[in-house]
Amino acid sequence: MPQKTDKTKLVKRHLSLISTTSSWSRALRAGLEDDGGFDWTTLGTLTRPDRRVRARIVAKSEGIWAADGLIEAMAAVEPKIRIRQKIFDGERLRAGQLVCEWQGPADRVLALERPFLNLASYTGGIAMRTFGLVEQVRKAWKGPGNPPRVTATRKTLPGYRDLAICGVLAGGGHSHRVSLSGGVLIKENHIASAGGIEAAVKGVRGIAPHGLRIEIEVRDEKELRSALNQRVDAVLLDNFSPSDARAAVKTIAKSADSDRIIVEISGGLNEENIAQYVFEGVHVLSVGSLTHSVAAIDLSLLVEGT
Amino acid sequence: MPQKTDKTKLVKRHLSLISTTSSWSRALRAGLEDDGGFDWTTLGTLTRPDRRVRARIVAKSEGIWAADGLIEAMAAVEPKIRIRQKIFDGERLRAGQLVCEWQGPADRVLALERPFLNLASYTGGIAMRTFGLVEQVRKAWKGPGNPPRVTATRKTLPGYRDLAICGVLAGGGHSHRVSLSGGVLIKENHIASAGGIEAAVKGVRGIAPHGLRIEIEVRDEKELRSALNQRVDAVLLDNFSPSDARAAVKTIAKSADSDRIIVEISGGLNEENIAQYVFEGVHVLSVGSLTHSVAAIDLSLLVEGT
Amino acid sequence: MPQKTDKTKLVKRHLSLISTTSSWSRALRAGLEDDGGFDWTTLGTLTRPDRRVRARIVAKSEGIWAADGLIEAMAAVEPKIRIRQKIFDGERLRAGQLVCEWQGPADRVLALERPFLNLASYTGGIAMRTFGLVEQVRKAWKGPGNPPRVTATRKTLPGYRDLAICGVLAGGGHSHRVSLSGGVLIKENHIASAGGIEAAVKGVRGIAPHGLRIEIEVRDEKELRSALNQRVDAVLLDNFSPSDARAAVKTIAKSADSDRIIVEISGGLNEENIAQYVFEGVHVLSVGSLTHSVAAIDLSLLVEGT
Amino acid sequence: MPQKTDKTKLVKRHLSLISTTSSWSRALRAGLEDDGGFDWTTLGTLTRPDRRVRARIVAKSEGIWAADGLIEAMAAVEPKIRIRQKIFDGERLRAGQLVCEWQGPADRVLALERPFLNLASYTGGIAMRTFGLVEQVRKAWKGPGNPPRVTATRKTLPGYRDLAICGVLAGGGHSHRVSLSGGVLIKENHIASAGGIEAAVKGVRGIAPHGLRIEIEVRDEKELRSALNQRVDAVLLDNFSPSDARAAVKTIAKSADSDRIIVEISGGLNEENIAQYVFEGVHVLSVGSLTHSVAAIDLSLLVEGT
Amino acid sequence: MPQKTDKTKLVKRHLSLISTTSSWSRALRAGLEDDGGFDWTTLGTLTRPDRRVRARIVAKSEGIWAADGLIEAMAAVEPKIRIRQKIFDGERLRAGQLVCEWQGPADRVLALERPFLNLASYTGGIAMRTFGLVEQVRKAWKGPGNPPRVTATRKTLPGYRDLAICGVLAGGGHSHRVSLSGGVLIKENHIASAGGIEAAVKGVRGIAPHGLRIEIEVRDEKELRSALNQRVDAVLLDNFSPSDARAAVKTIAKSADSDRIIVEISGGLNEENIAQYVFEGVHVLSVGSLTHSVAAIDLSLLVEGT
Amino acid sequence: MPQKTDKTKLVKRHLSLISTTSSWSRALRAGLEDDGGFDWTTLGTLTRPDRRVRARIVAKSEGIWAADGLIEAMAAVEPKIRIRQKIFDGERLRAGQLVCEWQGPADRVLALERPFLNLASYTGGIAMRTFGLVEQVRKAWKGPGNPPRVTATRKTLPGYRDLAICGVLAGGGHSHRVSLSGGVLIKENHIASAGGIEAAVKGVRGIAPHGLRIEIEVRDEKELRSALNQRVDAVLLDNFSPSDARAAVKTIAKSADSDRIIVEISGGLNEENIAQYVFEGVHVLSVGSLTHSVAAIDLSLLVEGT
Repeated sequence: MPQKTDKTKLVKRHLSLISTTSSWSRALRAGLEDDGGFDWTTLGTLTRPDRRVRARIVAKSEGIWAADGLIEAMAAVEPKIRIRQKIFDGERLRAGQLVCEWQGPADRVLALERPFLNLASYTGGIAMRTFGLVEQVRKAWKGPGNPPRVTATRKTLPGYRDLAICGVLAGGGHSHRVSLSGGVLIKENHIASAGGIEAAVKGVRGIAPHGLRIEIEVRDEKELRSALNQRVDAVLLDNFSPSDARAAVKTIAKSADSDRIIVEISGGLNEENIAQYVFEGVHVLSVGSLTHSVAAIDLSLLVEGT
Repeated sequence: MPQKTDKTKLVKRHLSLISTTSSWSRALRAGLEDDGGFDWTTLGTLTRPDRRVRARIVAKSEGIWAADGLIEAMAAVEPKIRIRQKIFDGERLRAGQLVCEWQGPADRVLALERPFLNLASYTGGIAMRTFGLVEQVRKAWKGPGNPPRVTATRKTLPGYRDLAICGVLAGGGHSHRVSLSGGVLIKENHIASAGGIEAAVKGVRGIAPHGLRIEIEVRDEKELRSALNQRVDAVLLDNFSPSDARAAVKTIAKSADSDRIIVEISGGLNEENIAQYVFEGVHVLSVGSLTHSVAAIDLSLLVEGT
Repeated sequence: MPQKTDKTKLVKRHLSLISTTSSWSRALRAGLEDDGGFDWTTLGTLTRPDRRVRARIVAKSEGIWAADGLIEAMAAVEPKIRIRQKIFDGERLRAGQLVCEWQGPADRVLALERPFLNLASYTGGIAMRTFGLVEQVRKAWKGPGNPPRVTATRKTLPGYRDLAICGVLAGGGHSHRVSLSGGVLIKENHIASAGGIEAAVKGVRGIAPHGLRIEIEVRDEKELRSALNQRVDAVLLDNFSPSDARAAVKTIAKSADSDRIIVEISGGLNEENIAQYVFEGVHVLSVGSLTHSVAAIDLSLLVEGT
Repeated sequence: MPQKTDKTKLVKRHLSLISTTSSWSRALRAGLEDDGGFDWTTLGTLTRPDRRVRARIVAKSEGIWAADGLIEAMAAVEPKIRIRQKIFDGERLRAGQLVCEWQGPADRVLALERPFLNLASYTGGIAMRTFGLVEQVRKAWKGPGNPPRVTATRKTLPGYRDLAICGVLAGGGHSHRVSLSGGVLIKENHIASAGGIEAAVKGVRGIAPHGLRIEIEVRDEKELRSALNQRVDAVLLDNFSPSDARAAVKTIAKSADSDRIIVEISGGLNEENIAQYVFEGVHVLSVGSLTHSVAAIDLSLLVEGT
Repeated sequence: MPQKTDKTKLVKRHLSLISTTSSWSRALRAGLEDDGGFDWTTLGTLTRPDRRVRARIVAKSEGIWAADGLIEAMAAVEPKIRIRQKIFDGERLRAGQLVCEWQGPADRVLALERPFLNLASYTGGIAMRTFGLVEQVRKAWKGPGNPPRVTATRKTLPGYRDLAICGVLAGGGHSHRVSLSGGVLIKENHIASAGGIEAAVKGVRGIAPHGLRIEIEVRDEKELRSALNQRVDAVLLDNFSPSDARAAVKTIAKSADSDRIIVEISGGLNEENIAQYVFEGVHVLSVGSLTHSVAAIDLSLLVEGT
Repeated sequence: MPQKTDKTKLVKRHLSLISTTSSWSRALRAGLEDDGGFDWTTLGTLTRPDRRVRARIVAKSEGIWAADGLIEAMAAVEPKIRIRQKIFDGERLRAGQLVCEWQGPADRVLALERPFLNLASYTGGIAMRTFGLVEQVRKAWKGPGNPPRVTATRKTLPGYRDLAICGVLAGGGHSHRVSLSGGVLIKENHIASAGGIEAAVKGVRGIAPHGLRIEIEVRDEKELRSALNQRVDAVLLDNFSPSDARAAVKTIAKSADSDRIIVEISGGLNEENIAQYVFEGVHVLSVGSLTHSVAAIDLSLLVEGT
């Protein structure tokens, strides 16, 4: 059974991964190319472009910081800018709060301002929303042990899967499979292709690496029972009402593998209804809109003289 | 003075641009790499992966279609899938409406499903929100001629500028400068660097290509007057209240260049307040959240046998 | 418990994966760039370079074919060459056997000959060796159900992970985790970092996606018992002698989770010793040299006139 | 009306743009790959390849330096080479003049010599020719205010647009639109497509971002008058003889927008004829051969012992 | 001794090389990205962008065609445009001559016009100049056998080596080494590093692949004699006056290897002086300005209705 | 005639080539991306990921080190790890020997461990095998002067040509042509295309750069005599038995160019038979399996606390 772990630690760990930093760098560089070669406004106004300036990045609304990797990426992309970080992944931001201070040549600071803010406000937005849901789930939890995890899904913009996961982790959520090779989830279309639940489960069990659990999405009690008969490792209850979900969890509790099957609920979960799905026997609550509909947090950069 | 143009035409034009199609292709390919090499679930369930299937993409919520370029990109990325398009850029989607039909090998259809949906629901979300604002502006407009344009800003995820603009255009909005080399906008930090509005305007006028108008962001009447003295081509009223904006427009109307200066308003515009900024003398209303806080529309793909 | 599955089916499934085909294409294109721009020998000898020729690819030694994806990639990289395939993934090759026939412009055939052969003989070599080990294991198996899987490890040349896995699958083997995000394996260095097995297992369980089993590498009985106490999902017996491995399996059989724990053996397995590790209670035999020390099979291309 | 600005300042500003530096880096790296992997001559002759050497880059002919960005790119591409710069963008080079001094390992110096020289002599050639034309225009100018700008066009080798513009700016010229998204220029083919000048101007005005002026290319007085009727912002007189150009300027002076229309002349301008187009009312002289027919300046690198 | 070969044949051979075509494609795609995402002028004027148009590419000045590879690349980059080619590599162009006809959607034709012309006029310019020098050499040649080859050097813009060589070959010239791994040329700096000619030649002979001749650059008779003593395969007479070159050739004729040593002359060769270096015993005349100072030929595209 | 050169020197030279280092970096980065974004095991176990650790890379079997370039690449890819190198290219490794020591953040060390080891054990395996063959040849050599070179062929995995050559050089072998543009080798298919040996040799001589020797592959005495009649520079005796090879060498010795023709033998050479081909008149022995069938050496990384 997956267990909740301490949020702050998770976040700190996450940021030192070299490949995630490289995802941040790639995004930051992509942002730089948006200037199209010549920033005429800066060219025309910076009489001494190499003049070092100080700049402060400040939150203009509430949020959660989820971009330590971006700050690390800055060092690779533009070593002339030195950054002093004041807040770290997973920490809350209040309006007016200082996030970090930059020192560097004026033209570089202006060139990196927009891509930096666009990225940090995106992952911060994901973290903020995740945090809200995680808190709701935590408060609604009456059981012993850990409350269900809140996870995102694969509904992310191409190229932004890694960064979106950073946001989710910083907000206290968990990652679903990172890619199709990193998890098994048998869905309606797969079942139809295989010709039934039994064939689908057997087929996947025969090919998937032994380190992956076999999870299957079911749409009703009947499918659930078929899945249990195949002794799957995890079930996803798709679009179940709260009462149907409770009934399903009872069915699972009576199955041979009740002590090891992971139960995930998905389908339209949001701030209005998530609490109704928080009860014993539920382990994972996955929320697509966490990453497909992101409200950016508000950050801004202010240049000072130096 | 920029003029409004017919939405439907714009959209059709837009989609045939070769470079925009290449932005769609790049994004689609990035999406494919998310499968991490081996989609074990599909491998395990598709006994005849080359079996051709039909699939339908259907809207599950209201929206606007803004992804003709994506359909064109599909032909380059996976020529084995044939797509029949039922709805075109700028057209409204109702829940349940058929968007397009696919025919192709089962495994390819499953592999492209998620990246396709992630992209189309993103630009569709931008288009939908743009459309709502454009409609509000149109209804609030009392003057002769065209109501103000609604434009996005540069607050887009790195790599997604082009696609976001496609969404804005499909929703009836307009593009702001595509990149820093494609427009001049003198802001607070530039003015500070140059040592004042006069120096800033002169500096930029001396270097910027002759095809670019000189636009300057002002924060109050005093800055506005300085800008007018420099005979700029456009002013952006930043964070003006509705009444201050009306006063500013009056000031502009009295200036030497009143018949040619473009007036843009920006800063926190949204569905709640945009109508208050719709009056004669305002030409552009720019809304950052159009692209930084996108609510995806809901699309899904259903596979049928064939 | 992972189960063996029919080899022939696996292979056919595998080849239609779009991302795997794209790995083949990338490799094939990389091969093309090796010509350095100008193949002077071909330039000097082909008086009519657009003359269509036929060519045959023939096995010069025994082997197994494992490159259907490469043939698919050829269509994308050089559509002027038509290929008729005579043998398919997972099928045996005898010396002298016709693999496929090409038809196309002489210069293109010569340009693609070397990269094609280099790639197909590499994956074919992996498949051949895998097949030999899988057969040994199958013959040594006395138990009911399926014999243990033979899997490769992560010891692959950068950029060749996917193709190596294709070879392993074609030879009847299985994939280990495709990447670090697609599986959990706690090793000696992780245990040391975490400060012990308990801390390590708890830490990983708290962060890893719920679809991943928790596997741990152990070096002796004592570590094994600690791991079992943490109720891990899989154990890797690292460098155990056959008799120690048998003892370990007995220990596992007595544990609370005996019916669900997956047992993997690794460390210096090869043709000489693998049969000694084939007994009930062993599920996975992983062999690093399958992919780090590959003996290519011998294929050659013969051009005929047409 | 665009205004001339001080050359020296322009150049210094330009070099600190991060995206331009990245264009230089990209080109420099492309140059490195030209060694094909193994420079056998250097391998065979450098008995101590890590021996640090000094090298001097010296001008062997007259020219203008236009590659500060390249020197900055060197630091990223090969940090082991230290460069002391003696001359800066926009400064004249005499034959024999020291441009910069390098210190670094012998093999790295030899590897970077050729790509560095190839690039710097290219932009220096563009700068030198631009400077000659700008001087001619300046001398021919009899009017008050600023003489016309000399600009390049879009006739640049793919991948070299940015670097060519650097050369033009260093020579005292100006950039035309950097890309098609950074300016509007309605040409013969567009007018034909739209069905006439009126439709063309209205169509573009309806879609182009508000920061772009509407410029149109006209071939005779009749087209000019149609363009003026549409109240365009700029006209390009294409292939006008000097006397026709003077007549056209008189026509423009009588139009409603005479005080704000920008007048550009283009078509076969060169050292022989440019002075004839320098008269009041002309603002821009664009010269395609500035970038499509470049005569490189002569630079060479001499290694000394150290 | 290298021998001249028939120009027309060479050119035809050259174009079918797959890697050269890929260099053209890369350049063409780089050209497309120059539109910055949105070509506002085309968007605003093409009311039916999918309308198929015909276009003709016509020479406006004399030249030589050297871009068959570009036409092949077009098929990969934009299959919607069909091209009928009227003239082939190595053929002369007269002003007014039809080069090729295009048929395709108006917007695609306009998008590809500029990159196509920029590339074809560049290689055509190289071919034209090469042809002039080759003709001069041919006319000045009094000896039996073949006149000396005209070759380019490595003075090419990064990324354009292959295309420049295409131009040289189409003009009847020859390629020097394509990259540093494809030839040996020991220069002044290498001799200094090695500590003399003997050490340099021995060092390179010990490491260079056996298929490469050992060529050495000499600056005077003394160095020449040292080189001959080392029994090199080729000498480059660097910056020799015509009379010094004649003397050097006599020295070589007296050496042990007189019948197999290849003699190359380089250093400031151009239309004014090349004929003076054409005499028996000279095999190669290399001209850096062939590729570093290119005068583009004049080509233009005219759209017609269809 | 190519000459053997001192191994140790060669290796040291090789490593400082900037482009080879960039091949290593590319491979290393490709290896990093294999972690798929999130290394869950490391994330879950490193409570203080920024804790600096020491690690030792140790040989677990005999071998030869051939990865100085990789160590240099590490500095670019991950500057946070400091490496102290104990052994250098071309030096022997004994089991247990310390190769290098790392110091750096624990997470980075773990992330780079696998790609580093995969690469170094690959080139080390090539070097080791090359060394064995070179030693055999050296011992079998009875003649004066240098024994024949051992070279690899073009049978390398796409993208690994450079690294494979590094391995061969470190083992005391030599490189064959690096790419098709870096050497001429006329084979059976070329002869057939050209219509015979005479036409083939003349054709290639006419187009190939003058720095390349003309080498031809012959299958019997008859072809050999035809080749000698064309006065080629080198012959490759393909699949000759030892006695046939001796006969062929005698034929060559009687030819007009006996003192300058290079003789290469290839086709199934290996440890069993290579000594039989070592006799006077043979200059090059090329062995395809050196690079197509590589047995990796065994290296491992051990983390210690610090």
